[in-house]
Order: sequence, then structure tokens, then C-alpha cells
Amino acid sequence: MAATVKLYSSWFCPFAQRAWLALLEKGVEFEYNEIDPYNKTKEFLAINPRGLVPVIVKDGKCVYESAVCIEYVDEAWPDGPSLLPKDPYERARARIWSDFITKKIVPKFYVALQRQTRPEQEEAMAAILTALKELSGEISAEGPFFGGPSFGLVDIMLVPFGIRFEILNHYRGFTVPQTEEFARFNRWLAACEGQDSVKATLSTKEKYIAVYKRYENNSAQTEVADAIRKGTSLP
Amino acid sequence: MAATVKLYSSWFCPFAQRAWLALLEKGVEFEYNEIDPYNKTKEFLAINPRGLVPVIVKDGKCVYESAVCIEYVDEAWPDGPSLLPKDPYERARARIWSDFITKKIVPKFYVALQRQTRPEQEEAMAAILTALKELSGEISAEGPFFGGPSFGLVDIMLVPFGIRFEILNHYRGFTVPQTEEFARFNRWLAACEGQDSVKATLSTKEKYIAVYKRYENNSAQTEVADAIRKGTSLP
Repeated sequence: MAATVKLYSSWFCPFAQRAWLALLEKGVEFEYNEIDPYNKTKEFLAINPRGLVPVIVKDGKCVYESAVCIEYVDEAWPDGPSLLPKDPYERARARIWSDFITKKIVPKFYVALQRQTRPEQEEAMAAILTALKELSGEISAEGPFFGGPSFGLVDIMLVPFGIRFEILNHYRGFTVPQTEEFARFNRWLAACEGQDSVKATLSTKEKYIAVYKRYENNSAQTEVADAIRKGTSLP
Repeated sequence: MAATVKLYSSWFCPFAQRAWLALLEKGVEFEYNEIDPYNKTKEFLAINPRGLVPVIVKDGKCVYESAVCIEYVDEAWPDGPSLLPKDPYERARARIWSDFITKKIVPKFYVALQRQTRPEQEEAMAAILTALKELSGEISAEGPFFGGPSFGLVDIMLVPFGIRFEILNHYRGFTVPQTEEFARFNRWLAACEGQDSVKATLSTKEKYIAVYKRYENNSAQTEVADAIRKGTSLP
């Protein structure tokens, strides 16, 4: 039996990108399987009945939920750079800010893209900036990454959205000011863009803009898009 | 300097109960500080500007967010019973089902209590039962707890709500059927009710029913109640 590790991902999905980044950062050898969320195969639904990416399969066992995947990769491959600090308080702090990204930034990103009236879009973008300002102040003063010189959990949670702010810029005019309040965030994003794992999981701006058109005109038939339309919590 | 560990909690808050249970399960000595969420002291807001319980303070450092607190307690006090399994896949599985409780059960509990029309209440209660059925099938066949004989992360995440289903029963007529589909859940809840830490953090049914009146008539001025009213994600 082949003991191949498999990643099920969709090239444009920010949640899948998190698991993909974690595997690359840890130097894990894996087989990349592209899933079309608009046309899920029976094979994939047999692996994960919930039908969401990312899924990591190792020794026949499936792990899903992007934040869980990051910690799983860190623990299942203890060699390679640690994605979480060693100190219990610092680990808790990384998890607190991961949770902050999940609650305060991610839903607003989709609301800003999907809502069709300007006041709703502006309210969501203002909420993103308020959250980013708070988060920026928590990034290591020395930087460039959240916890200092090494790229880890909080960076992996945020960078797929940090990169996709250019989609929000294209469709909604969103920009992060080049001011002192956002200085650490802006330095952080520039450092992330230079990270090999980020480059390897990135597509072109043109492709992202094309695929996110379905969100921008609120016609995307994904579970994330649907949750934003219904105002329920994200899957 | 006293190195006292402090817990900031509200006696009726299910999120605070999680941190409280974790500290008791690990045998940590701590000082319990009761916070009135309707009248937060300046001292507490200086400790946690977000003003939410639970907060654990150790060596002058604050940890908050209930799920983060549980893992923090497990890691900061490595002696005592482990609250998470050792195996990386089993750890990931515990986190997946913790996340399931957060997304599929907790918000529906508050919706069922706060919504004022019967169809909305019934929809939320049906959603809780659908989620509980799925979760029930994931509980260890041998039991009684989620992962088997020892009480841990998933149990701590769910038990404050499992116990508070009696509030939902009182106000909304919610019951979990005594059928095979829910057999493991029902055995699980009975076992939890016998756990010393659960007994020590429990109040009486009468007190819970009185304090949750503010949720039942949708007048509660907490951040959780407010999020349910607005249809946004829970704090």
C-alpha cells in the first residue's frame, strides 16, 4: 500500500491554501488533487461527505477544517520548522489571533464582495480595517511575521486573505492605508509575498479576479457564498 | 509576588464553565473571580478590554476564548490527566468536533431561546437535533465520553450546553429523544452529570431558568445575545 499523503484543494480557495501552505512549510511530500467545488466528484464526496476543501489524507484518515489542518500538519510531522511556538502562553496567543481572523476578517471579506449595495460593502470594508489595525499592533515589532522571524499559524491563517485583498481592491476599491497604524501589517504582507510557500500556492491576479466574479455578482454556489447570503456562520 | 492563577468567570456562562472545568480537571489551584457581565468592573476591563469571560491569568498573562483556554490549560499544566489525545490524528479529530459544536450547536441554542416566533424556534431546535445525531455517532462506542473513558476537550466544549438543554426544555419544550440514534449522546450526558468537575461548576435548574429569562424574552444585553439578534457570528 502506498503511504502517499494527499491534499484535496481548489486552486482559488483561501481555506485550502492554508493546508497547502502548512504542508509546504513542513517539507511534506504529498499528492495535490484539484477539486472543482462546482462539480464535486463522487470519489471526493466519499472521502469527505461534507464536500469542503481542504482535506488532508494520511494513512487512510481524513483531516479537514483549515485551522485544524495547520495544527495537524505541525503535530503529525514534528520535524521541520514549527508552525506554533513552544511556550504554552505563546501558543494560546497564536490561537487567539487565529480565531480573531476567523471571526473578524474572513466573514467581512466575503460580505464586502457579495453584498450588492455600496453602504453594506463600505461597512464590511471598514470592519476589515478596524480588525487589521488591531491585528497590526499585535504583530511582532521586530517582524516580519506575526511571531517574529518564523512563518507560522497566524501567518498561514491570514495570508490567503491578505493576498486576496487585491480582489477586493479591484471590485470594491479596498486599500490598506500606508500609515503607521498599518505599518506592521504592510511589512508583514510584503514579507509573506516573498515566502517560497506563498509563491508556490499563488495564482495570478487575473485568474483570481475572473474566478471571484461569481462572488462579486453574488452568484457563487459554494457553501461559503451561501452562508454569507443567509447571514449564518461560515461552514 | 503571588503567583496565583486567576479565573474570571460568570457563574451562568457556558463559555466560562469550559475554562473552569479544564482547570478543575487538571487539578490547578486557582482563585475564582465572579464577573457580572451586565456590570463589568474597571479592574476586569483593564485585564481584558474585550470584556468577555472566561479569562485565565497566569504570571500576569491573560488567555481568553474558551476553546483556547482548554488547550492552554492542558499545555501549561502538563501534569494531570490529558485533555487531548496524544496521537496527532486523534487530536485533529477532537478539534474537528469541537469546531462542529461551535458552529452547529452553540448558535442554534441561542437562536432557539431568543427568537420570538415558534417556527424560528422549531427550526433552530431541529438543527440542534440534526447536529446532535451526527455527533452522537462520533462518540466512542465504548464510551462514556467522546474519546472513551477519559473526559476531555470535546466533552468540555459540549457539556455546558448539554446541561443547559434543560433551560431549552423549560422555555421551548426541547427534548433529545431516547432513541438509538441519540443513545451515545444520552449515555454521554448522564456520565458527564456524574463527573466531579461538572458537579462543582453547576448551579441549580431554578437559578439557570431565572437568569436565562433575559435570553428567552430577548432582552439580554450581552455580546452573545446581541450577535444572535443581529445575525452576526458569535463573539
